[in-house]
Amino acid sequence: MTATLLGCGINPDKVTLFQQSTVPEHTQLCWCLSCICTMPRLAHLPQYKEKSKDLKDIPLGLFIYPVLQAADILAYKATHVPVGEDQVQQIQLAQDLARMFNSRFGNTFPEPHTLITGTEFARLRSLRDPQKKMSKSDPDPKSRICMTDNPDEIVRNIKKAVTDFTSEVTYDLEKRPGVSNLISIHSFVTNKSIEEICLEAENMNTGKYKLMVAEAVVSYLKPIQDQIQQYYSDPGYLMQVLQDGKVKARNICSSNLEEVEYKLGLRINIKEKKQIKVQT
Amino acid sequence: MTATLLGCGINPDKVTLFQQSTVPEHTQLCWCLSCICTMPRLAHLPQYKEKSKDLKDIPLGLFIYPVLQAADILAYKATHVPVGEDQVQQIQLAQDLARMFNSRFGNTFPEPHTLITGTEFARLRSLRDPQKKMSKSDPDPKSRICMTDNPDEIVRNIKKAVTDFTSEVTYDLEKRPGVSNLISIHSFVTNKSIEEICLEAENMNTGKYKLMVAEAVVSYLKPIQDQIQQYYSDPGYLMQVLQDGKVKARNICSSNLEEVEYKLGLRINIKEKKQIKVQT
Repeated sequence: MTATLLGCGINPDKVTLFQQSTVPEHTQLCWCLSCICTMPRLAHLPQYKEKSKDLKDIPLGLFIYPVLQAADILAYKATHVPVGEDQVQQIQLAQDLARMFNSRFGNTFPEPHTLITGTEFARLRSLRDPQKKMSKSDPDPKSRICMTDNPDEIVRNIKKAVTDFTSEVTYDLEKRPGVSNLISIHSFVTNKSIEEICLEAENMNTGKYKLMVAEAVVSYLKPIQDQIQQYYSDPGYLMQVLQDGKVKARNICSSNLEEVEYKLGLRINIKEKKQIKVQT
Repeated sequence: MTATLLGCGINPDKVTLFQQSTVPEHTQLCWCLSCICTMPRLAHLPQYKEKSKDLKDIPLGLFIYPVLQAADILAYKATHVPVGEDQVQQIQLAQDLARMFNSRFGNTFPEPHTLITGTEFARLRSLRDPQKKMSKSDPDPKSRICMTDNPDEIVRNIKKAVTDFTSEVTYDLEKRPGVSNLISIHSFVTNKSIEEICLEAENMNTGKYKLMVAEAVVSYLKPIQDQIQQYYSDPGYLMQVLQDGKVKARNICSSNLEEVEYKLGLRINIKEKKQIKVQT
């Protein structure tokens, strides 16, 4: 994961790259926020509803995950959070929790704003079901293209991508979501416009077009995958990047958590101790 | 709280006394356990049902608190847990979570056993409603006797204790829970048997008997409260006890959490890195 992010061009000198689970302040703040969050508030979140609807024994982690996400944001007093459209409700929860905390315990958290990338690439669709978004948690690996997929896998998955019974290559997100998704991917990896691509593919059927898309994706990923491989061969460096990131992250969030715990009365300030009344 | 525990005779050389919120491993393990615990399992716990039944917006903290309690136990791989009868179901949850973790991720936690103090003092009742247990979280302070109550408060609360319309002092937990509760308290603070006390109070009415109980409680608490006051006047020592306890506690639970995180795949072991397939 670290190698992949670095391979994609994330610069650890500019970005604080760390493993969330190595920074205990996340779960500590999550616990504090759990105590001001209500059950109905979480039960209404659409991602929870969608993921839990077919489950009998719903894991608690699925239900409370949005509170951990809120903690991920608020632990750093973040003001802007880049997300996909499907995450907007989660950010609203973080905003609500920030407001509730501020009004009960004094001004602490700035309200985190959503930053949505406003392009058609913001929500690539599943190759198997263009009604769903492309997701690394989809059980079917053929539904997605991974950064580390080899050319054979990429060609196979794009060849098997669900389209429709029309053989022309035209862009219509609503009526032809499958082929439009391929055009979006193609446009993204080649930097060509949708119109340009449709013109190029005018005389192709979707079968042939898929091979063209696959080839473009493979070429696009080649230099990134070379980079990933290079980072991957140096685990010491990767560990160092994560270790440095962890120190930088904790520098920020440990003092924020201290402030929260103090306001909640979880930290002792011996100067402010109350006098207890005892018999003399 | 620390002064009170020390004042009651807790010896910090024998006991690890620390503030749970200063040891982040508790919430970290709580998160891990949340992911193997299910929603229905928690919804069936009697304490949750009782406390949530009159609430519209149930706080999430109330629902997931038993998972934090399980983490409090399992973080130390505890084998025996001293609890009141009303906590048995919470320990069963910890046992279940230990078993579930062990079976999915390999043997890690011993099964924690309950240690129940088997006397009639195990469950003192509320002075206002002898059907309920005496509890520091009851909204009515007159329902309980606190270690740091002054004599006036103790006398007032015991005088106002709910009994019944029979004026004799007899012990019958089922038919006369109010006065029986006072006899239990009396027996506890004087070390006299129930029979002895009933004989002593044979010619008293409950009004007069209440004053006798109050006096006995006041005398019993006097030396403890003197000790508490002494500890309370030395906040530096109290902070040191908590600091030492925290270090001792973390020495135990940080390596346990490390083991858990390693088994869950949250810790990186660079020697075990998987080869990724990338194009060459």
